[in-house]
Amino acid sequence: MHPSAGGREFPGRRKKARSMATLCKPSVSVPEHVITMEETLELASSRHPDHPQLPLALRLIENTGVKTRHIVQPIEETLKHPGFEDRNKVYESEAKARVPAVVQRALDDAELLTTDIDMIIYVSCTGFMMPSLTAWLINTMDFSSDTRQMPIAQLGCAAGGAAINRAHDFCTAYPEGNALIVACEFCSLCYQPTDLGVGSLLSNGLFGDGIAAAVVRGRGGTGIKLERNGSYLIPKTEEWIMYDVRATGFHFLLDKRVPGTMEPLAPALHSLARQHGWDASDLDFYIIHAGGPRILDDLSKFLEVPPDAFRFSRATLTEYGNIASAVVLDAARRLFEEGGAEHASRGLLAGFGPGITAEMSLGRWQNNDGEPA
Amino acid sequence: MHPSAGGREFPGRRKKARSMATLCKPSVSVPEHVITMEETLELASSRHPDHPQLPLALRLIENTGVKTRHIVQPIEETLKHPGFEDRNKVYESEAKARVPAVVQRALDDAELLTTDIDMIIYVSCTGFMMPSLTAWLINTMDFSSDTRQMPIAQLGCAAGGAAINRAHDFCTAYPEGNALIVACEFCSLCYQPTDLGVGSLLSNGLFGDGIAAAVVRGRGGTGIKLERNGSYLIPKTEEWIMYDVRATGFHFLLDKRVPGTMEPLAPALHSLARQHGWDASDLDFYIIHAGGPRILDDLSKFLEVPPDAFRFSRATLTEYGNIASAVVLDAARRLFEEGGAEHASRGLLAGFGPGITAEMSLGRWQNNDGEPA
Repeated sequence: MHPSAGGREFPGRRKKARSMATLCKPSVSVPEHVITMEETLELASSRHPDHPQLPLALRLIENTGVKTRHIVQPIEETLKHPGFEDRNKVYESEAKARVPAVVQRALDDAELLTTDIDMIIYVSCTGFMMPSLTAWLINTMDFSSDTRQMPIAQLGCAAGGAAINRAHDFCTAYPEGNALIVACEFCSLCYQPTDLGVGSLLSNGLFGDGIAAAVVRGRGGTGIKLERNGSYLIPKTEEWIMYDVRATGFHFLLDKRVPGTMEPLAPALHSLARQHGWDASDLDFYIIHAGGPRILDDLSKFLEVPPDAFRFSRATLTEYGNIASAVVLDAARRLFEEGGAEHASRGLLAGFGPGITAEMSLGRWQNNDGEPA
Repeated sequence: MHPSAGGREFPGRRKKARSMATLCKPSVSVPEHVITMEETLELASSRHPDHPQLPLALRLIENTGVKTRHIVQPIEETLKHPGFEDRNKVYESEAKARVPAVVQRALDDAELLTTDIDMIIYVSCTGFMMPSLTAWLINTMDFSSDTRQMPIAQLGCAAGGAAINRAHDFCTAYPEGNALIVACEFCSLCYQPTDLGVGSLLSNGLFGDGIAAAVVRGRGGTGIKLERNGSYLIPKTEEWIMYDVRATGFHFLLDKRVPGTMEPLAPALHSLARQHGWDASDLDFYIIHAGGPRILDDLSKFLEVPPDAFRFSRATLTEYGNIASAVVLDAARRLFEEGGAEHASRGLLAGFGPGITAEMSLGRWQNNDGEPA
């Protein structure tokens, strides 16, 4: 079904959002332990010398173009599986050790204090805690006790885009509100030594760890003024990216059809842009989830934009690997660090993940001292 | 800290919400397998005859006043632990078998079609799937592919209130939008036979299974017109209700101080009401999370309202036990089934859960054919 089919007007289609929600500069941190492409290929070869599809797996890993990944533990520790319980304890301790500094930098970059934040959206699919880290963050960093908590563990890589979109919605509902987004992904803690399918071997060479945080300000701020967002689920693909939940933890299952999903998703991006009076093929900047190289290659083809338009996403993939929900925030950070874009220039953000779900957003670059676009 | 301390205006305080978001009649379903209080007490005695604190546990269970609970499997199956993987498979198959009918009834009661829904908020802390059930629901029940998905697994019993509040915010951002809330809780699938603390024995006698769904309509509808919401986290209590996540699944940890939390939470409810020009002690209806009898007793004391004001919550607790995030929706259903309230009469909704977090809401009863309040 075409994404805009059905005839009904859904809210995002009806009119431009009234809010001035602005995605401020994301702060990103990757851990200190580094694994290179060469080391990844050597590990795959030495651990699976007799695997019948080893040559295919090595070729797929090489094709990712991922030069380095950063992980929270040394590789020797990462390759062990101490059990789901210990893994979750590592997740918790590493998150507590690393997240506050990233959050503080995002707040500083947005020129806000913890007490200015009205909602924390915490997305992470690589560790599970209840309560989520939001409660600890509020207590530890002195956020207001009134801060809303929105923890999301089940949107996978799409959660970065979802977080931006829900923060946008929140600031539309409360035009003077501010939302903090945190994406904390330690994909290395989901390594499953007994998973030997080609999809698993590829994933072992693709995913990396990273933490990102960003503020969406209801008023003021320099960055991407969010104007419209939307979601799209490709029908009947809910088993293409999923977790098998076992005593050993989350086992990531990746269907071989996933790299081909940009063909059905590109029309959804075009449709959202059209609703806004824009042309998705003719925008000034693109912040796209770098799920893998084919995702970026295909989307640039189907959107008819030059490969260079996805340079931020490609840099994330090359330097960090696929850091799940944190990718879109890291790609956005690179736009900021390039100096941003011209005032009022138009851009597209999109996260993709299980469902298969796309979380899409349209916005304009906004300089704090410029006129509202 | 007093919840309204800090001096900063947060959005909820600034002015009344502009939305007309209306919580329509919730639909609730409990499973066919029933366990009575007598059976619970017998089971506790026969399984733990030598437990030094058995008399205390039995007394605590009796004090809950829970007469019957409904569970998804026969009690013999429930008492087995087939492993986290099998438990999650049961969760998934039971959810798929039971949720659609509950959702359909909620849609019918709201006089909407699946294609009228713009967001699905699915809350559940008793099973874990990625993607969450939202993707399957969209595919199976023919929701629009544009439907936003907000799955929340980490707010526990507070998630019912959170779902109402996030639906309210969504309809504030998109005044013609409609949000579907689903709370699916199979607490019996978190039974851990090796957990022998008094808190665990009590929990084994307190929690039940249930599914609830409700629509929040941006325009129209009979029910509770949501006017203001807020969250409150009791400082430094993040370990009082939590999951220990292990190879055997989620182990529920309940601190003995939890039943005393209404004293610090009542001021947050008073504060929210005051911001709205209301008096939390003098409202026309109350929909409160029935975490246990002490929660309801204490809150009625601290809010200075007669015990009968919490009759909906007490009925839920007595007939179903604590069905986690579904409690507030079931208590609201009972208000609807009592015939609702007078047009424009004022009420309070509150869910409590890990954090310790309160998700609070103020609204007015609205008849579809009446004047807007």
